[in-house]
Amino acid sequence: MLSKKNDYDSGGEPSRKKIQFADQKQEFNKRPTKIGRRSLSRSISQSSTDSYGSAASYTDSSDDETSPRDKQQKNSKGNGDFCIKNIKQADFGRREIEIAEQEMPALMALRKRAQGEKPLAGAKVVGCTHITAQTAVLMETLSALGAQCRWAACNIYSTQNEVAAALAEGGFSVFAWKGESEDDFWWCIDRCVNLEGWQPNMILDDGGDLTHWIYKKYPNMFKKIKGIVEESVTGVHRLYQLSKAGKLCVPAMNVNDSVTKQKFDNLYCCRESILDGLKRTTDVMFGGKQVVVCGYGEVGKGCCAALKAMGSIVYVTEIDPICALQACMDGFRLVKLNEVIRQVDIVITCTGNKNVVVREFLDRMKNGCIVCNMGHSNTEIDVASLRTPELTWERVRSQVDHVIWPDGKRIVLLAEGRLLNLSCSTVPTFVLSITATTQALALIELYNAPEGRYKQDVYLLPKKMDEYVASLHLPTFDAHLTELSDEQAKYLGLNKNGPFKPNYYR
Amino acid sequence: MLSKKNDYDSGGEPSRKKIQFADQKQEFNKRPTKIGRRSLSRSISQSSTDSYGSAASYTDSSDDETSPRDKQQKNSKGNGDFCIKNIKQADFGRREIEIAEQEMPALMALRKRAQGEKPLAGAKVVGCTHITAQTAVLMETLSALGAQCRWAACNIYSTQNEVAAALAEGGFSVFAWKGESEDDFWWCIDRCVNLEGWQPNMILDDGGDLTHWIYKKYPNMFKKIKGIVEESVTGVHRLYQLSKAGKLCVPAMNVNDSVTKQKFDNLYCCRESILDGLKRTTDVMFGGKQVVVCGYGEVGKGCCAALKAMGSIVYVTEIDPICALQACMDGFRLVKLNEVIRQVDIVITCTGNKNVVVREFLDRMKNGCIVCNMGHSNTEIDVASLRTPELTWERVRSQVDHVIWPDGKRIVLLAEGRLLNLSCSTVPTFVLSITATTQALALIELYNAPEGRYKQDVYLLPKKMDEYVASLHLPTFDAHLTELSDEQAKYLGLNKNGPFKPNYYR
Amino acid sequence: MLSKKNDYDSGGEPSRKKIQFADQKQEFNKRPTKIGRRSLSRSISQSSTDSYGSAASYTDSSDDETSPRDKQQKNSKGNGDFCIKNIKQADFGRREIEIAEQEMPALMALRKRAQGEKPLAGAKVVGCTHITAQTAVLMETLSALGAQCRWAACNIYSTQNEVAAALAEGGFSVFAWKGESEDDFWWCIDRCVNLEGWQPNMILDDGGDLTHWIYKKYPNMFKKIKGIVEESVTGVHRLYQLSKAGKLCVPAMNVNDSVTKQKFDNLYCCRESILDGLKRTTDVMFGGKQVVVCGYGEVGKGCCAALKAMGSIVYVTEIDPICALQACMDGFRLVKLNEVIRQVDIVITCTGNKNVVVREFLDRMKNGCIVCNMGHSNTEIDVASLRTPELTWERVRSQVDHVIWPDGKRIVLLAEGRLLNLSCSTVPTFVLSITATTQALALIELYNAPEGRYKQDVYLLPKKMDEYVASLHLPTFDAHLTELSDEQAKYLGLNKNGPFKPNYYR
Amino acid sequence: MLSKKNDYDSGGEPSRKKIQFADQKQEFNKRPTKIGRRSLSRSISQSSTDSYGSAASYTDSSDDETSPRDKQQKNSKGNGDFCIKNIKQADFGRREIEIAEQEMPALMALRKRAQGEKPLAGAKVVGCTHITAQTAVLMETLSALGAQCRWAACNIYSTQNEVAAALAEGGFSVFAWKGESEDDFWWCIDRCVNLEGWQPNMILDDGGDLTHWIYKKYPNMFKKIKGIVEESVTGVHRLYQLSKAGKLCVPAMNVNDSVTKQKFDNLYCCRESILDGLKRTTDVMFGGKQVVVCGYGEVGKGCCAALKAMGSIVYVTEIDPICALQACMDGFRLVKLNEVIRQVDIVITCTGNKNVVVREFLDRMKNGCIVCNMGHSNTEIDVASLRTPELTWERVRSQVDHVIWPDGKRIVLLAEGRLLNLSCSTVPTFVLSITATTQALALIELYNAPEGRYKQDVYLLPKKMDEYVASLHLPTFDAHLTELSDEQAKYLGLNKNGPFKPNYYR
Repeated sequence: MLSKKNDYDSGGEPSRKKIQFADQKQEFNKRPTKIGRRSLSRSISQSSTDSYGSAASYTDSSDDETSPRDKQQKNSKGNGDFCIKNIKQADFGRREIEIAEQEMPALMALRKRAQGEKPLAGAKVVGCTHITAQTAVLMETLSALGAQCRWAACNIYSTQNEVAAALAEGGFSVFAWKGESEDDFWWCIDRCVNLEGWQPNMILDDGGDLTHWIYKKYPNMFKKIKGIVEESVTGVHRLYQLSKAGKLCVPAMNVNDSVTKQKFDNLYCCRESILDGLKRTTDVMFGGKQVVVCGYGEVGKGCCAALKAMGSIVYVTEIDPICALQACMDGFRLVKLNEVIRQVDIVITCTGNKNVVVREFLDRMKNGCIVCNMGHSNTEIDVASLRTPELTWERVRSQVDHVIWPDGKRIVLLAEGRLLNLSCSTVPTFVLSITATTQALALIELYNAPEGRYKQDVYLLPKKMDEYVASLHLPTFDAHLTELSDEQAKYLGLNKNGPFKPNYYR
Repeated sequence: MLSKKNDYDSGGEPSRKKIQFADQKQEFNKRPTKIGRRSLSRSISQSSTDSYGSAASYTDSSDDETSPRDKQQKNSKGNGDFCIKNIKQADFGRREIEIAEQEMPALMALRKRAQGEKPLAGAKVVGCTHITAQTAVLMETLSALGAQCRWAACNIYSTQNEVAAALAEGGFSVFAWKGESEDDFWWCIDRCVNLEGWQPNMILDDGGDLTHWIYKKYPNMFKKIKGIVEESVTGVHRLYQLSKAGKLCVPAMNVNDSVTKQKFDNLYCCRESILDGLKRTTDVMFGGKQVVVCGYGEVGKGCCAALKAMGSIVYVTEIDPICALQACMDGFRLVKLNEVIRQVDIVITCTGNKNVVVREFLDRMKNGCIVCNMGHSNTEIDVASLRTPELTWERVRSQVDHVIWPDGKRIVLLAEGRLLNLSCSTVPTFVLSITATTQALALIELYNAPEGRYKQDVYLLPKKMDEYVASLHLPTFDAHLTELSDEQAKYLGLNKNGPFKPNYYR
Repeated sequence: MLSKKNDYDSGGEPSRKKIQFADQKQEFNKRPTKIGRRSLSRSISQSSTDSYGSAASYTDSSDDETSPRDKQQKNSKGNGDFCIKNIKQADFGRREIEIAEQEMPALMALRKRAQGEKPLAGAKVVGCTHITAQTAVLMETLSALGAQCRWAACNIYSTQNEVAAALAEGGFSVFAWKGESEDDFWWCIDRCVNLEGWQPNMILDDGGDLTHWIYKKYPNMFKKIKGIVEESVTGVHRLYQLSKAGKLCVPAMNVNDSVTKQKFDNLYCCRESILDGLKRTTDVMFGGKQVVVCGYGEVGKGCCAALKAMGSIVYVTEIDPICALQACMDGFRLVKLNEVIRQVDIVITCTGNKNVVVREFLDRMKNGCIVCNMGHSNTEIDVASLRTPELTWERVRSQVDHVIWPDGKRIVLLAEGRLLNLSCSTVPTFVLSITATTQALALIELYNAPEGRYKQDVYLLPKKMDEYVASLHLPTFDAHLTELSDEQAKYLGLNKNGPFKPNYYR
Repeated sequence: MLSKKNDYDSGGEPSRKKIQFADQKQEFNKRPTKIGRRSLSRSISQSSTDSYGSAASYTDSSDDETSPRDKQQKNSKGNGDFCIKNIKQADFGRREIEIAEQEMPALMALRKRAQGEKPLAGAKVVGCTHITAQTAVLMETLSALGAQCRWAACNIYSTQNEVAAALAEGGFSVFAWKGESEDDFWWCIDRCVNLEGWQPNMILDDGGDLTHWIYKKYPNMFKKIKGIVEESVTGVHRLYQLSKAGKLCVPAMNVNDSVTKQKFDNLYCCRESILDGLKRTTDVMFGGKQVVVCGYGEVGKGCCAALKAMGSIVYVTEIDPICALQACMDGFRLVKLNEVIRQVDIVITCTGNKNVVVREFLDRMKNGCIVCNMGHSNTEIDVASLRTPELTWERVRSQVDHVIWPDGKRIVLLAEGRLLNLSCSTVPTFVLSITATTQALALIELYNAPEGRYKQDVYLLPKKMDEYVASLHLPTFDAHLTELSDEQAKYLGLNKNGPFKPNYYR
């Protein structure tokens, strides 16, 4: 649910070229270890998970080492159609879910509004996402709207065991635990899909693995599937590849690129998480620090605004003249990295590009310089180039390495160049709420769409529904929307209920 | 050149419905007075003009009252193919042009770069725009690139006479003066177009009147015309109407909606001009003032950011939930107008809508409340509703009226509800530079496009040229763009020279 | 009332050394022309005056050229004890006063609260200040509190003639007009003081000229004078000199250094007027501009904050390490002027020092660089060094000179190096209100103080009265102060009604 | 070293009345447990300590449970004059010290500059402060300048054991460990003071306990003591009490109230730590949140600026009209708490007062409201009033309690109302550097002052030395100070080397 952050930052649609889905079998076979691949591209870091599910840690440690696959567990109603770490943690997980509910007002409102009509009555949703308290609120909302759900984790590390327990206790068929093996991962997905007498008619995916598995193993299932809702960059691009190749056999909804989600995941969320991530790892004082931010897309804009507000002096690098001009007008010196690399205290990458900070630059940084990445992948900083014999690595805290040059100079490298905000800060529930609400609406839309509205293609959520997601979040801020009068609506040539903006509005 | 500001603010494409171009003859005949129509929708106010051409005023007053049409004037080379106020003001106008050149680096760079190849060699451009120092820099650039130009004013008030004189002295066929009559206006346009042995092949229009005239009077001329470049909202919408009706007979370039122009004309320019306009008219102190801004599109965002930065407490009203949520995240209370109308010190409209501030609200404002409009038209504030017998109007300064209620309460109405930034502040040359550069590039593109690239339709400037306009303005800020390495370009799937972003990027 | 801005900026108490008052006769004789001296140090510029009394200009022009001293005028009640330009402008002036009243809520509140007790009953106040609508509100307040007033202008240019007329019509003995000669100036002061049967007992001075005159001509008058209230830097320093020399023979109240006044005149007012002054003179766009601000005292802090907020890139120079560190923490690069002088677009001085921008720096500025002064005096920029034969001066607008180097480089010099905010912007009435309220309270305090509370020395307004001035201005902002409970006051060791802070609090 | 934060915030000198030192014996006896008292007023929280000395935690857990007092340890040179947890952690502590050195450039510069002359040669300093890496840098600096040092901890929890080990290994007589008992605490202090053949001549104290102990046990020692340097509010006020009572027998330097320290500890540090503290405890999203900040002193100003910059809507309460007016001008609505208490999402106290947030307000807060304290003491929020049977307390994380009302409403109470920034965030080393440098300079000043310069009173650091501390920190920011020319210094009446500002400058 977290990994689609930060795309389109600066390089347009950078990853479209990176992902090959053409020969699916081959790609699947190529994956050497689930862990390796995942931990780079989509994982929610361990520390991050812990911080918003602090309970997890100590209960985990008291658990036995038996694999969940080898345990027989039943919930209090005698139901055993799930596979999780420990059903006894259910109460604990329930509290976490209740706390999350408070910050997810839109889903709660959706439950209320749609309760009467049950727009998902008859829906059989198979899902594969991070299993967290926020996901639980989504699942219980889908259920309240009439859907049946079976669920697996999209990441082998990110499951909050106590939340999984609460879901199982509540009657959901959940197959997930923290620390799955590669084999466990696919086993769990298979258990969601492959059940005597169960034929899913909706897919909710995050990363495309569930979709991939059904394509590979149960292609006939697609005959009854009404649509796919996918929210990660990676998954969305796989779908576009399928579509291009003429192999997409159901409509798919691209949740990742909705306006609301983009603005929240990138601009607004990064504005806060850059500060949080730097503080938690280094306790650095921002005032007076010289910082260079590489890339002035939405993520870069958020980082720059926050640091400027805290009294840092911020330089920006850009390749795109339009973003460059925006940086100028917003009050940032536009430089090339080599012009300032010797003087800056902090280097932040958010370009979506690779090799933005290479060894040559790292060599010229001053002692104590902090280097981190807020961008798409872990390739922006050429961390590999630092793995040479003359440099000493010293792990000084979790997620913080000192890389020491022969002359004693230290570079402070955060999260080994992975996404700082995922590794070292948390994502506010409120941001996740926007994504989850969008997912729920996308499911409703696809499930109820009249024959023919959607073809075998990838769609963006209709503008109007994007606006609806936004409107469901306004009460949180006690915000009061103005309504158009009939006369005004006519004057503007708009429907009083929207959509109000062209699709490309950002 | 100034009037297309502030569209798409909040209501998408609000004006598309407002402009009827279907029956051209009828529409033309309906126009009662040139002055009336113009002064509302497109005029640059007198005070505004004066302030950046301060010279104009006193030379004007010393002028005789003879109509330019009745004078015979020749420039120093004996050329008399122009009609302006007074050729003797040429030196004076030349200085104004030279000052403008300093703030229009992109056009000057264009002159240099394109000098060798003369990409407009053979172009015969007929133009109809505001005649200001900035336009002169554009015209002289077109000339340097090889074009012949004939020019009229798009507004009966906005011509800087001394600049027109300098252009005439420089050999340009200019037909324009400050204070034209309706009849003069069309006469001037006709003189541009209708000359023995002159057949224009390019049109540069601002407002669509020139285009309209040719359609009406010389439809055959379109056979040799390669394209139209139009920069106003009004003109662009007329073109879309023509296109829809299948009557557009040449390609047209919509300069108004290019990213760079939109951001500069709306967000960045309004951020400064809201402060300027309020100060010049009222000398109000911003610190601690309570302000409500109606509409949180680009214009509203600019106004809110500026006032917040100056210590005002800003409330926002919106109809669109997405913009509403942005306002919340940017730290503004989202309210309905009636919730705050009694307490605010300043009311600013920027919605693109009509009747946003109606009499009912005006009745409830507190004594001394300032009311002004930064939005699309002069209909946002229902000024007409204030023309009732029980209210006294008192003109206290140019552009400033006190409207006085029977109980002594005064409302301070600025510019009679017309655009504050056009009426009471100036537009920085740098902003005009971006528009002018875009116009020049659009002319070059259309003139040189291979047969078939553009059909009889309305086009946006190719993304890449938009980026080029931006890049030409970076040196002003001593801004240094980073270049992609081959490896990075490949990774991103981009051409090293752009375009770097999808078309919808804002 | 305007001139005391910007002291103590950066250099502590810079002017204390500059003013010699020792030999008064000599100093007086030395003054060559009233105009010359005044126009540099204390004058409110013509343009500035006009902009908030726009009426003045056209009525003036219709006036005859007879000196007011040669006219016999009476007001409608037959009273002729005044000397002004034209009593017929009284209605006009009344409206200006009424408008000012709306922005001076504290004085109006003072009128109401103190009406019953008439704390100035018996006071005979002789005053010498700028004669503006704001001063009129002050004078009429003093009158409402029981005082008799006679008034002259402290500046030969700053009088608003129509306001003087309204005051004369209202029965005040005013001796002032716009455009006095040096001789007129002293004649007017003398007419205020020297009247058969009139013995003033309070002095309200702005600049020290009135005090000086009485010292010189009527030293015996001091026997009945209860105190002096002085509000300008210059005047205050003269008083300190007198006190030091043991020649001060009555208590004096230093209004200039009260907290409220300092913060408003410097930090808050300059934050707005730097933008206003630059826009009105140059229409420059702030976004992306590189600016160097010399001095990071209150004035510098205000300028920097405003420009940073508008998207400028701001550098700071300082001599004081504490202010320097503040600049760093607030996010500004601290540099020496020579490090950035070649690259900046705008240079602003606010140091209170002399020769901060010398010819050497002016020679190295880039083409189009704007140079202006927000600091104490007109010596910060070495303007004299630009009066050399090889440089051409070109006046392009009021208050704007282009200084042109032989190679064509132009520097844009504003207000010939005088205070930008006094010359090219206006001071909001609200700021003047704070000063005027402080003056009124100081008069009340001195007039009613029990014998012995004040000796023949210079005093600051008691902290508690400073807080009272502030509290009188809170209702303007609909601001609600919290009151201490008895228990809380006891806990803090404070009186519930203040003072709340130590004297040195800023 | 951390506790002096936040005084003078809003209530002048709030604590002066709170601290009774008159009968010292009695007060000492009254203290029931060292832990209880300390943990409220001066402790650095456990979590906070851990985060900047992460190493400590795991080494501690592997330690045995033997009391250090029962161990015999020697360092590698055979010296055993210390009492710490475990000398084997020395290497580890050395690394922590080296990291701290990088952020304490001023002390390092001081070492270099003063190395030749050894200004503390002969000084025998007995100290009682937090024992952290930053203190170690201070101690080693004092040693480099010629002093001998013996040291104890001023807090039973705050000692970083590995740093104590490194100091012991380096030859310092340190008596401190994490988790001392009340008895241990005084035993350690006594060991510092009471050594055969050791007579301290300087005291460096933080909280006044060391001073108290010597007064109580070894009053004769003061005969040879040249002065006391004290840096906490509490300690400073004890000294003022002693002075008032005529019992202070040596000069004392009040480090707490130096400008640099005040601005850094309050405004600049709190601007960052409010965000950090809220994020680490609650992961709350700031954008759009409504926040009320009680008190607009330096701490309140810092909190408000940060939250406004992050997109929160901030209300302010104040008792002082001057601060209230500042809040207005800075763009905050000034309200009484009861006007907004129902609508806000976050309540922050920083008044220095007691019972600012009482049960009545807590009852009316909305569900999920976060309540925390950034002010002086733990009495601002009436936490005791929440300890009633009908409310349920739930500890959801370290430092985070949910207090649950019978109707299910939850209040999120942070740090049980203690200082948020000390309990839940860290203090940047750079801030500590300023304090430590000031302490070092104060010691040098007192030690070298000629007879008679200082009497038996409490002094502020001379302005010039305050400026020197600032100047030593400028190189960190690559900041370049401008120097006055002789002519300029003369003009301003200043010494070229300062002091540049009056003492009261803030």
